[in-house]
Amino acid sequence: MRIVTYGGAVSLDGFLAGIDGSIDWLQFSKDVGAITTAYWKDVDTILMGRKTYEVAAAQRPAKSANVKSAKRRSHNEAATRTYVFSRTLKSLDEPATELVTGNAVQFVRDLKQRSGKGICLMGGGELAQSLLAAGLVDHIGLNIHPILLGQGIPTFRDLPHRVKLALTECRTIAGGCIFANYKVLLPE
Amino acid sequence: MRIVTYGGAVSLDGFLAGIDGSIDWLQFSKDVGAITTAYWKDVDTILMGRKTYEVAAAQRPAKSANVKSAKRRSHNEAATRTYVFSRTLKSLDEPATELVTGNAVQFVRDLKQRSGKGICLMGGGELAQSLLAAGLVDHIGLNIHPILLGQGIPTFRDLPHRVKLALTECRTIAGGCIFANYKVLLPE
Repeated sequence: MRIVTYGGAVSLDGFLAGIDGSIDWLQFSKDVGAITTAYWKDVDTILMGRKTYEVAAAQRPAKSANVKSAKRRSHNEAATRTYVFSRTLKSLDEPATELVTGNAVQFVRDLKQRSGKGICLMGGGELAQSLLAAGLVDHIGLNIHPILLGQGIPTFRDLPHRVKLALTECRTIAGGCIFANYKVLLPE
Repeated sequence: MRIVTYGGAVSLDGFLAGIDGSIDWLQFSKDVGAITTAYWKDVDTILMGRKTYEVAAAQRPAKSANVKSAKRRSHNEAATRTYVFSRTLKSLDEPATELVTGNAVQFVRDLKQRSGKGICLMGGGELAQSLLAAGLVDHIGLNIHPILLGQGIPTFRDLPHRVKLALTECRTIAGGCIFANYKVLLPE
């Protein structure tokens, strides 16, 4: 079964981005470069909600750049497929990008059964919340930055139940960031 | 100037306790024992808001135990003084415990100038929020547990501005917990 990973760079108070999606507080470093390069080698699919898609789109320099901002770190960009989940969008005009308007949980459950590499769940919205609640996220990886943003886009939202994790990796990286990886444990 | 520290054991999604203050998910270990013993040696004052006080009081086995639940980890309990901040309480019948009904920020600013040991800020309420916003918290120490609680009492609430931190210590401790210490940096 394919592995779904969730996470990203977060503030210590748990935000993936500030108000309006600001990410000027992110620290890039050789450590981050090495981690993301290794990560994207094993991924060929990206999942994101409509809001994350729109934030990513707004941060693109030009329409011709397409979803490069989201895929910049991919080593095999041509083979990466993106699914955007929305109940309101009618169509998407992006190469290698597919709009999913139906039940996200069922779609991802099926997707995990298909052959392919790892699946990256992006953004901090309702999509992540529903996939976490449905037990469809396998790994959580965070790059915890030494800052309190105070407000912003939360990494984790309300869940209907607790989710137990197992820490699989933890190390300090450049800039006082903590890189932590977790395996999501199935309910007992 | 006396040092104010804030933090405690938290879930990965940033809660100090579950709904209704539940802390059954906390992992105790020799590591936690050593960390708390070292911490309380340098502390003689506890600050908490009214809600934290009430949660602590409700978890006490009997009234005669007084604030022992909050101070269980202290090595010099007799010398520890607790200040409870409230706009609604009229009085407190606890030894070594004082009710503060006035401006919390001004009170703590003055308290830090007085002679004494370290000051421990407890709980996840508005008191922590206002002292963080006022720049009166010096250190943040978290024992990040490998669990998503989904809902509960948040460690950090909305702040009117960003707060930059410097990571001073990070290590994995028993049970897959991450012990991380930060120094709060003054605004540039």
